[in-house]
Amino acid sequence: MTEQQLAAVKIDRDRLWRDLHETCEWGKGERWGEGTTDIGMSRLTLSDADKQVRDWFVNTTESLGCKVQIDAMGNIFAVRPGKKAGPPTFAGSHLDTQPTGGRYDGILGVHAGIEVLKTLNDNKIETEYSTGVINWTNEEGARFPISMVASGVWAGAYSLEKAYGLVEVGGGKATQKSELERIGYLGSLEASYKANPIGAHFELHIEQGPILENSEGKIGAVEGVQAFKWFIITVKGKDCHTGTTDFQNRSDAMLTAAKLILHSHNKAAELGCLASTGILTLKPGSTNTVPGFVQFSLDIRSREDQKLLELENVLKSDFAQIAAEKEVGGLNTLGTRGRGCTVEWQLDTDSPATKFHEDCVKCVEASAKAMLGTDAGGKVQRMTSGAGHDSVYTARHAPTSMIFVPCRDGVSHNPSEYCSPEDCGNGAQVLLGAMLRYDRLRAEKGA
Amino acid sequence: MTEQQLAAVKIDRDRLWRDLHETCEWGKGERWGEGTTDIGMSRLTLSDADKQVRDWFVNTTESLGCKVQIDAMGNIFAVRPGKKAGPPTFAGSHLDTQPTGGRYDGILGVHAGIEVLKTLNDNKIETEYSTGVINWTNEEGARFPISMVASGVWAGAYSLEKAYGLVEVGGGKATQKSELERIGYLGSLEASYKANPIGAHFELHIEQGPILENSEGKIGAVEGVQAFKWFIITVKGKDCHTGTTDFQNRSDAMLTAAKLILHSHNKAAELGCLASTGILTLKPGSTNTVPGFVQFSLDIRSREDQKLLELENVLKSDFAQIAAEKEVGGLNTLGTRGRGCTVEWQLDTDSPATKFHEDCVKCVEASAKAMLGTDAGGKVQRMTSGAGHDSVYTARHAPTSMIFVPCRDGVSHNPSEYCSPEDCGNGAQVLLGAMLRYDRLRAEKGA
Repeated sequence: MTEQQLAAVKIDRDRLWRDLHETCEWGKGERWGEGTTDIGMSRLTLSDADKQVRDWFVNTTESLGCKVQIDAMGNIFAVRPGKKAGPPTFAGSHLDTQPTGGRYDGILGVHAGIEVLKTLNDNKIETEYSTGVINWTNEEGARFPISMVASGVWAGAYSLEKAYGLVEVGGGKATQKSELERIGYLGSLEASYKANPIGAHFELHIEQGPILENSEGKIGAVEGVQAFKWFIITVKGKDCHTGTTDFQNRSDAMLTAAKLILHSHNKAAELGCLASTGILTLKPGSTNTVPGFVQFSLDIRSREDQKLLELENVLKSDFAQIAAEKEVGGLNTLGTRGRGCTVEWQLDTDSPATKFHEDCVKCVEASAKAMLGTDAGGKVQRMTSGAGHDSVYTARHAPTSMIFVPCRDGVSHNPSEYCSPEDCGNGAQVLLGAMLRYDRLRAEKGA
Repeated sequence: MTEQQLAAVKIDRDRLWRDLHETCEWGKGERWGEGTTDIGMSRLTLSDADKQVRDWFVNTTESLGCKVQIDAMGNIFAVRPGKKAGPPTFAGSHLDTQPTGGRYDGILGVHAGIEVLKTLNDNKIETEYSTGVINWTNEEGARFPISMVASGVWAGAYSLEKAYGLVEVGGGKATQKSELERIGYLGSLEASYKANPIGAHFELHIEQGPILENSEGKIGAVEGVQAFKWFIITVKGKDCHTGTTDFQNRSDAMLTAAKLILHSHNKAAELGCLASTGILTLKPGSTNTVPGFVQFSLDIRSREDQKLLELENVLKSDFAQIAAEKEVGGLNTLGTRGRGCTVEWQLDTDSPATKFHEDCVKCVEASAKAMLGTDAGGKVQRMTSGAGHDSVYTARHAPTSMIFVPCRDGVSHNPSEYCSPEDCGNGAQVLLGAMLRYDRLRAEKGA
């Protein structure tokens, strides 16, 4: 297809919006989203509501002329035939949600994929290679506690046995396997990139952060997913009386932890990384006792594995110095210098960076620019995803990229999650354009 | 008495040490003190063990020729007659302990007072005014939860009704009154500084901090008790995803709290005050969620009420600025500057400074210097008590001072609490000297 032909193919924005909200009747949440008329979602993976929306997905895509296959993890692959043989170019995301989630995280990506297929049909477009839509099982990890577990099995990151054995949280006895069987979605296709290869994977998703919104960006062409490491930091000092112990004679684990937390942020900013502390506990916990024990979580992230390692190394060295009351970063002024504490590091999670395929990223970028026209400029931005998605696993075995659209205040995993009809439509239009451009590229390259 | 005569009067250090450990058989704790052969104490106020040691106190002081009176709060006043009429010069402290306390906190002060009486008898010294020893009820506040409550009633700080109504902690039904009655120590004397005035109050106590030990000091001449205020500080920001939210778009309550805690210490050091955070809680408490809510305790202390107010005021102003991401004290570097948080202050406890009587402090100082001789130098130090004692209340209505002696590592309220025989003896010797010097001073002044 020429650029001119591509420009003429437009998704139906109203249809997309209407369809998306219709299927949200299955698994409606209890709470209304703040400032919207939408109700949030509570569609836990493999629940009755998830079965209902899966049935709708299968019926809808079959009615669009797709061949639908279900693998051993319940992942659903709907394929619309193209001219040539070879693995399909997919749009993929997930229909499950958090227990108090919203209507756009995952759901938008699947619906946009279906809207792409509808638009191809409406315009009687025959693609070079097959195109399709994937609904990945249990992206959220909210009910069976490993996120992206089914795309992970497909990619060979987890064994089927491990995934099947996951028991639901909250004291229930159901396993991921028993629930797949119960709702009739334990498929016969092997859950494997070898048995069921993917030609390419494009995932439209809300940003789940405020960067686009704040910079008046409209489309993020996602180049990859950040590396992150989670640590538990333990600071050990000595309990003492707040009234009878001067600063010089304290080993104040809380004051030390405050310095370490501040320093981790300062160093992360300096190196273009992120640092966050979301959990902190201390002992003994009395107003007039200086705590001798503090434990806190440290989440550090970077686009580059090497940069993350650099941050980790500098923090390991600096934390020890700060705790020993040495002067680092202006944190240990003479007046509060005490007897020092010790610091222990424990690595909890280590997730290396994911790099998406430059061909795919360029297809997203080109489609966004084509859609926004002369107005594009800073509205199309290359981005790195801060959170994980199924695309992290598809990227291991297939050219992949993601498309980000703004969501209000960057809020996600909350009933107030909101993506405007304009942004949903923009995302789906770019998804269509990216898939068609990639299809063209594949044909040119003969891949 | 001349200085020469005073110098010749010496307490019996061995007797003091032996007597103290003998009475510690009543209310022995379960755990052995670390690195000592002593067992810790568990002699809760008005318990059976407390009755036993009270009976010993009454019998001992009566056998020394004292008149013993018990007031409505169970405070015991043992008085050895002097030449002149007028309220007695007392040594006072307490025989009750924490549930897992030590053998020196309070106990040393009472035993040293009795040793003073024994020494006066041994040396056939007739004082100008009567001298005596007080055992104050429930200094610890561990069983009936107001500390120093019985000296507080004596001073008019609490009503007898309020003190009587206190119910024991831990779910029991006993009240302070019912237990006073049960052990036979609800006396007929009115618990009041008006009905039962005190001529002066000297209290020997372990320091409960490491200042003397670390500076090779032997005697603290205590000038007063610090003012302190307890606040609960609430920092409100906004939860967000640690991976998808850059620093600029965060309202990170934990990072803000870390800055506030560090700043409170820096400002306190600058103004010669103390600041401490012993409790911190946050929400929601997940490694990959930046917390939108943090609450922490802030304990600030100073010798001067005015200084404490100055610290409070500067922190109130600076906390608001820091939370609003303004630059204060080098804490808000550009790199981590976000959208800001709000800070709320709640005052929990407000305890003004206590100033002891200069005459009494000088008597302590002179006695310490006389005892240590040419060796005194920095071994006698003017100090401010960081913790509260019964002397806080006696100081409201009678000339008062305290004598501090070092305790190992500054540890108190713990079975490992330890004060060496040398330091116990030093303290009792200074107590004797201070009481005799004050007695002489009163006679000179004709008070």
